[in-house]
Amino acid sequence: MMARYGILTSGGDCPGLNAVIRGTVLQGTSVHGQEFVGFLDGYKGLVYGDIKLLTRSAVRGISRHGGTILGTSRFGPYQKPDGGPDAIKKVLEELEVDGVVAIGGDGTMAAANRLFGDGIPMVGVPKTIDNDLQATDFTFGFSTAVEIATEAADRLRTTGDSHMRCMVLEVMGRHAGWIAIYAGIAAGAHVTLIPEAPETLDQICEWVTAVKDRRRAPLVIVAEGFKLPEMAEAHSDRGMDEFNRPRLGGIGDILAPLIEERTGIITRATTLGYIQRGGVPTAYDRVLGTRFGQAISDVLADGDWGKMVALRGTEIVRVPFSDAVGHTKNVPINFYNGARALFG
Amino acid sequence: MMARYGILTSGGDCPGLNAVIRGTVLQGTSVHGQEFVGFLDGYKGLVYGDIKLLTRSAVRGISRHGGTILGTSRFGPYQKPDGGPDAIKKVLEELEVDGVVAIGGDGTMAAANRLFGDGIPMVGVPKTIDNDLQATDFTFGFSTAVEIATEAADRLRTTGDSHMRCMVLEVMGRHAGWIAIYAGIAAGAHVTLIPEAPETLDQICEWVTAVKDRRRAPLVIVAEGFKLPEMAEAHSDRGMDEFNRPRLGGIGDILAPLIEERTGIITRATTLGYIQRGGVPTAYDRVLGTRFGQAISDVLADGDWGKMVALRGTEIVRVPFSDAVGHTKNVPINFYNGARALFG
Amino acid sequence: MMARYGILTSGGDCPGLNAVIRGTVLQGTSVHGQEFVGFLDGYKGLVYGDIKLLTRSAVRGISRHGGTILGTSRFGPYQKPDGGPDAIKKVLEELEVDGVVAIGGDGTMAAANRLFGDGIPMVGVPKTIDNDLQATDFTFGFSTAVEIATEAADRLRTTGDSHMRCMVLEVMGRHAGWIAIYAGIAAGAHVTLIPEAPETLDQICEWVTAVKDRRRAPLVIVAEGFKLPEMAEAHSDRGMDEFNRPRLGGIGDILAPLIEERTGIITRATTLGYIQRGGVPTAYDRVLGTRFGQAISDVLADGDWGKMVALRGTEIVRVPFSDAVGHTKNVPINFYNGARALFG
Amino acid sequence: MMARYGILTSGGDCPGLNAVIRGTVLQGTSVHGQEFVGFLDGYKGLVYGDIKLLTRSAVRGISRHGGTILGTSRFGPYQKPDGGPDAIKKVLEELEVDGVVAIGGDGTMAAANRLFGDGIPMVGVPKTIDNDLQATDFTFGFSTAVEIATEAADRLRTTGDSHMRCMVLEVMGRHAGWIAIYAGIAAGAHVTLIPEAPETLDQICEWVTAVKDRRRAPLVIVAEGFKLPEMAEAHSDRGMDEFNRPRLGGIGDILAPLIEERTGIITRATTLGYIQRGGVPTAYDRVLGTRFGQAISDVLADGDWGKMVALRGTEIVRVPFSDAVGHTKNVPINFYNGARALFG
Repeated sequence: MMARYGILTSGGDCPGLNAVIRGTVLQGTSVHGQEFVGFLDGYKGLVYGDIKLLTRSAVRGISRHGGTILGTSRFGPYQKPDGGPDAIKKVLEELEVDGVVAIGGDGTMAAANRLFGDGIPMVGVPKTIDNDLQATDFTFGFSTAVEIATEAADRLRTTGDSHMRCMVLEVMGRHAGWIAIYAGIAAGAHVTLIPEAPETLDQICEWVTAVKDRRRAPLVIVAEGFKLPEMAEAHSDRGMDEFNRPRLGGIGDILAPLIEERTGIITRATTLGYIQRGGVPTAYDRVLGTRFGQAISDVLADGDWGKMVALRGTEIVRVPFSDAVGHTKNVPINFYNGARALFG
Repeated sequence: MMARYGILTSGGDCPGLNAVIRGTVLQGTSVHGQEFVGFLDGYKGLVYGDIKLLTRSAVRGISRHGGTILGTSRFGPYQKPDGGPDAIKKVLEELEVDGVVAIGGDGTMAAANRLFGDGIPMVGVPKTIDNDLQATDFTFGFSTAVEIATEAADRLRTTGDSHMRCMVLEVMGRHAGWIAIYAGIAAGAHVTLIPEAPETLDQICEWVTAVKDRRRAPLVIVAEGFKLPEMAEAHSDRGMDEFNRPRLGGIGDILAPLIEERTGIITRATTLGYIQRGGVPTAYDRVLGTRFGQAISDVLADGDWGKMVALRGTEIVRVPFSDAVGHTKNVPINFYNGARALFG
Repeated sequence: MMARYGILTSGGDCPGLNAVIRGTVLQGTSVHGQEFVGFLDGYKGLVYGDIKLLTRSAVRGISRHGGTILGTSRFGPYQKPDGGPDAIKKVLEELEVDGVVAIGGDGTMAAANRLFGDGIPMVGVPKTIDNDLQATDFTFGFSTAVEIATEAADRLRTTGDSHMRCMVLEVMGRHAGWIAIYAGIAAGAHVTLIPEAPETLDQICEWVTAVKDRRRAPLVIVAEGFKLPEMAEAHSDRGMDEFNRPRLGGIGDILAPLIEERTGIITRATTLGYIQRGGVPTAYDRVLGTRFGQAISDVLADGDWGKMVALRGTEIVRVPFSDAVGHTKNVPINFYNGARALFG
Repeated sequence: MMARYGILTSGGDCPGLNAVIRGTVLQGTSVHGQEFVGFLDGYKGLVYGDIKLLTRSAVRGISRHGGTILGTSRFGPYQKPDGGPDAIKKVLEELEVDGVVAIGGDGTMAAANRLFGDGIPMVGVPKTIDNDLQATDFTFGFSTAVEIATEAADRLRTTGDSHMRCMVLEVMGRHAGWIAIYAGIAAGAHVTLIPEAPETLDQICEWVTAVKDRRRAPLVIVAEGFKLPEMAEAHSDRGMDEFNRPRLGGIGDILAPLIEERTGIITRATTLGYIQRGGVPTAYDRVLGTRFGQAISDVLADGDWGKMVALRGTEIVRVPFSDAVGHTKNVPINFYNGARALFG
């Protein structure tokens, strides 16, 4: 009998998820004779046995669409009253599913690892639009987010220049500033602020003033997780959570009036929000997603449980869950300082 | 001696302004033997005689850039202590400028008309990203704003679908909902809300619920000037002004929690803000801007003062300032009702 | 019993077709209580009764996709051995279809008019990516084609400038040069060549040389139907047909070496081809398509057979087939001359 | 006295060149107190001492523009009668230039290495849109080319699907198929053909037929350097050169009729040509270009002559010219086979 596997997508959506699903199914059916079902809405579908069949024709042409055809949620597999390994084992048995591919971020991988420890055959594909997973050089979705943020910054610049205003663009990145630093370099931002590198308002305004003094419109890109050292307490606890990212009164909205007051240049903030994470994925994200999907099908074929695929240089490798979870990949200080040398 | 004219851009920036400037200068120099200077930062440059030379080479290649190479401001030509027709006449005389092209919105045209009444040779090119000037079928900038808003809506939809959430997108449009209604039709929004057509929260939630009930993620597009009849007073006076459009706590941010509370579907708002008005103009806006620019050079050549160019069908026509100012072009109720038939 | 109508798309595909289908179905079902089927692959489906059901859910979300969900072909309704009005009447009767919406170009409308004359209840929606139908100010698809051509021209320009080469871009337009003239104005082409306006190689090379002499890279946009007066016979009969547009050795490939030889500037041609007519439609095309679709549903409801919808200014109107077919809408000479004033 | 360096761009243009120039100048002036001039039109400017000053303000905002502000050419530094190390040494002395940054492809690096051997202080930045340089994981320009090719493929697919035709897209890649293989994976092409992997017409038509048989429109992406084993001689010598890439009658135009004849499915070819290499660079290419530029300024500061910068994983490293030149980085066979598993 054919081996049959389940796929689920969990956590925030991300461009490239569909490429992973398609890559897994096409590789698995073509190369390894595997069959697939999709669990709907993340771990919820796994707990309740809510599935859809993933035939080859079900995944044709989906790579170029954002989101996930399987739906996603924050539901955890140990969530009571119905979750837990025994319930899940029963579901897998009933559905004749021999193993599960969990596609998700750090929390998803941690849950997959716990399930694996509890005897469930789990493998994983890392996903974070923030690119902040230690185990992999890049994650899919990040490229799309950076391109969108950069195009937005390019657009803001022409408005800033016409009105001689300082434009502040808030992008995603709660714990790590990868999107901000990439978009900042690409757009030639005059200041880029990331969670990893506190900069004082004085320093920020010095850069802004230097730009203004040569009669250019300052462009500031700030990651949502950046905090001014001066006011760390004031906005440290704004009820951000993994999904509720673009909040009212984010750091961009906090910074803009402070910059305006200190420097005297009219300053306007824009929060990019959900636009960064939806829609047509870049080719890069589709390729990375497809390669991850194909590689995880190989992992399934090998029964190499407890492993996650990852990108190292140009190669796809396998790493144990335990090496991957719980390690945020921050922007290294020398990378930040490289960008910082061009500020102002 | 060659006739010599000044050009100024006033009010909020808008994709296509540079195409107007280029079109005027190239047509004027090629066809009519005119010369041009640009007044910097709107009427401010006219009052203080702050200019830059607009040679053919100065305007080459600028059509594809957003913003305005002349800068812009809200400065009014009658602004004290230095403004007023006498000061301006003196500036024109000293600079040997024989007439002025004012490119701007309703306020700019009203000021130009007043200057014209005070004996200054003025002509005008209409500009409003909101497309709400009565005298012309379309204004440049509108096409770019609609395309950007539509792409954003397309992106939001994939996120909404993946998480089964209601996504609310706030776009520009303080008095007229053209951007919202066009983007709403293009993106297939389930609800589009415009200032011209009050809809109750009950009605909005009925549409949202209908979408949710067929297991789709509702997409709501709302123009910044839309007001819920129920709370008209509450948010009527949020200090919006012509330039300060994307404010904290706009209508999108107001609507989202109300929809969530009533319908039980998680709802997230995104405010597009300045991104709508900057950056590379669409081909449509470049063509319209260029045609307006060429036509206004012809108006100058004819000495047809007190006129503004406008689009009627596929033709560029001339209309007196007096016919154009003070008339907002709202979305006609039958146009809205056409779109509304597809809501829900 | 509900009235039931058929929809077909015929001729070359065009961005916006799906918006027409969706607009018709949603309007018809919401407002008029109509039902719809789609005939597959143009008139072929009408002759052979090959249909798919067009429910509301079948058309959801299709506006943002290029092409047509119904398929298309060049098959004519009178094509032997199986075509003709009697066969079609029998099909309509059997399928209980009360009237047919034909979406297509001049040939499609002519066929619809003939069928109408033969007693079949036909209405039409005009479609031509070339924008060359006399009865309507604009057709959907044209906006998308112009934006794609303009972006391509913007890209070619940077290569041309870096290498100091003349770049020639061939775009669609066999009989009318609308795409070329719009893209040419938008991209600031130094020469734009259209079928309506023969220009000699001498004149073309004069413009190219003028650009080269001021050390800029000349950009030439040429419509596929343009012919050099000098060599009209040589390439008049290259087997172009309605669908087989991007041929080997089109006018771009003919012009480039001629320009290089005469002017001494290295010249390279690019033929845009099919890329112009596929993919995500612009918001403009989706809006126009949707409005056409909604309007044609109203025409069906009125039983106003033999009519086609059209855009006049900002309004959708109805015109008899007989007024619409057989009249090519050329670029008016004064429009061309307006653009030509900026050449060189 | 300040150290003063020259920068030149040589060979075909490529998105990201301006980011390298800007990154070098900003880093050099900010961090190392260096000064810069640009040699115009590649090695030609070096031989003839034709320069422009590269101040900080000269490089502001250039990263987002395609092409190179320095111009480029195929001129070789040893080209007679005026080239050669002695002439160049004299130029450098006269202009007080202490070292030269050559940005270019394999030929440019080979020339730089020879100059270095002849005593001229040279360093290098690798450039190839084809991504085929062995020394570096990725080159800038490649990302932009892949995104453009993928978008074109997405567009062709909708046309193919509407007409049930096979669409063939020819992309760049004379010796290595990186652009084709990435775009092919991203676009979900049914067949991707690269120079490294000969496939017979029989095999190609088998894949095409399999797609046709399940009633989908086949999409074929082919790198310009692919050759059918059956006809290797026939088109082996078509006078391609480094710059003259999109030739008449490339492999796409050869393949299309062959596929049509064998499979009976109407087949159309599109050659993407120069559009792939111009215009706004992706954020990725701007970041990589900027990082390369900053790193080469550090190399200059260290006087580390004879070195080239390169990307390894996420790090920028230095490699000797001698290790870098003359080694084409082909698509590895296992990478190709990974993609090939999804063909058909």
